[in-house]
Amino acid sequence: MKRIDPRSGVAFTMRRGATLTVSDPQGQQVSDLVAYNRDDVREVISNGRTFDYEETIHLGWGNRLWSNRSNPMLTITNDTAQCHDFLLTPCSEQTFRHFYPDKPLHRGCFGNLVEALEPYGIGSDDIPTAFNIFMNVPVDGESGLLAVKPPISKAGDKIQLRAEMDLIIGLTACSAYDSNGGSFKPIDYSVSEIV
Amino acid sequence: MKRIDPRSGVAFTMRRGATLTVSDPQGQQVSDLVAYNRDDVREVISNGRTFDYEETIHLGWGNRLWSNRSNPMLTITNDTAQCHDFLLTPCSEQTFRHFYPDKPLHRGCFGNLVEALEPYGIGSDDIPTAFNIFMNVPVDGESGLLAVKPPISKAGDKIQLRAEMDLIIGLTACSAYDSNGGSFKPIDYSVSEIV
Repeated sequence: MKRIDPRSGVAFTMRRGATLTVSDPQGQQVSDLVAYNRDDVREVISNGRTFDYEETIHLGWGNRLWSNRSNPMLTITNDTAQCHDFLLTPCSEQTFRHFYPDKPLHRGCFGNLVEALEPYGIGSDDIPTAFNIFMNVPVDGESGLLAVKPPISKAGDKIQLRAEMDLIIGLTACSAYDSNGGSFKPIDYSVSEIV
Repeated sequence: MKRIDPRSGVAFTMRRGATLTVSDPQGQQVSDLVAYNRDDVREVISNGRTFDYEETIHLGWGNRLWSNRSNPMLTITNDTAQCHDFLLTPCSEQTFRHFYPDKPLHRGCFGNLVEALEPYGIGSDDIPTAFNIFMNVPVDGESGLLAVKPPISKAGDKIQLRAEMDLIIGLTACSAYDSNGGSFKPIDYSVSEIV
């Protein structure tokens, strides 16, 4: 396993058929994931297309994450946490100003993804709503109100996703206060050989 | 008022401070809305940023629709229907193949938006999850499951949105079967002078 330090991010490629494992080594930490077609980075994960085809906002074991061009990009093949979010965008300077005006400014997962993805020719306007692994965002079906709660993931919880095409992945250890219960922790990940 | 014919779409510009009125002349019809910064079309409405800042998935009177760059683009200043969706993407050839394999293929709101927005230099990969006016997508907060139900809008229901920057708007009369209760109807709209 490789480690993503607290409040940082990485980017890497993975081949179709390989499996990405993301684990929460200490528990209650969030990891924002974005994915692009390695051969054409204008194809990107889309929460709207995923909600359309999977017919749920709770993505877990067996669900697929779809692209803006209606192609499956990743299939969730294992999921011990069973609580993730695909509604909210990566935290950023602007969200820190909005939600934490009394806290030190930070570029957030958004800034970390921008830096990590820049070598792949991916710019800030190309960053979509992320698949927020282990993020706990309950939604009240009646009122529509949502809230960012501490994750329910425990130390060692993990999710595994199989690539359905050659991909560029951006992945973070989240920088925001609310999404990780007020502390900043690392995230571990690995990419399997193709079986 | 101008009319958008059933299963078609339009695009137009509006200035900061102007108000867009979208009305459902016959009731139970959906209109997909997308918005771009007129001076830089890489700035676009974002459901994720909107859910972040408005802290709800039910957008209505008083809520703002935010851009991917964390700027307010539109403010909802009137809303007689009180039921809209910002989770799902515009219907397209691919969604027709997926959801209506026995029905004639149609390019859907997505294809209509692509054609209408092409003169503004906006391409198919630039079309985000739309703000789906009058669309009725209940979400079960426990399971996360969603469903596309017939709209609850009645003939004459309307929504009004004030532009918070100079905008390019794409707007449709929806082409899908489920979102409009199985029939295809027009949508009316107008843009006010700036007051």
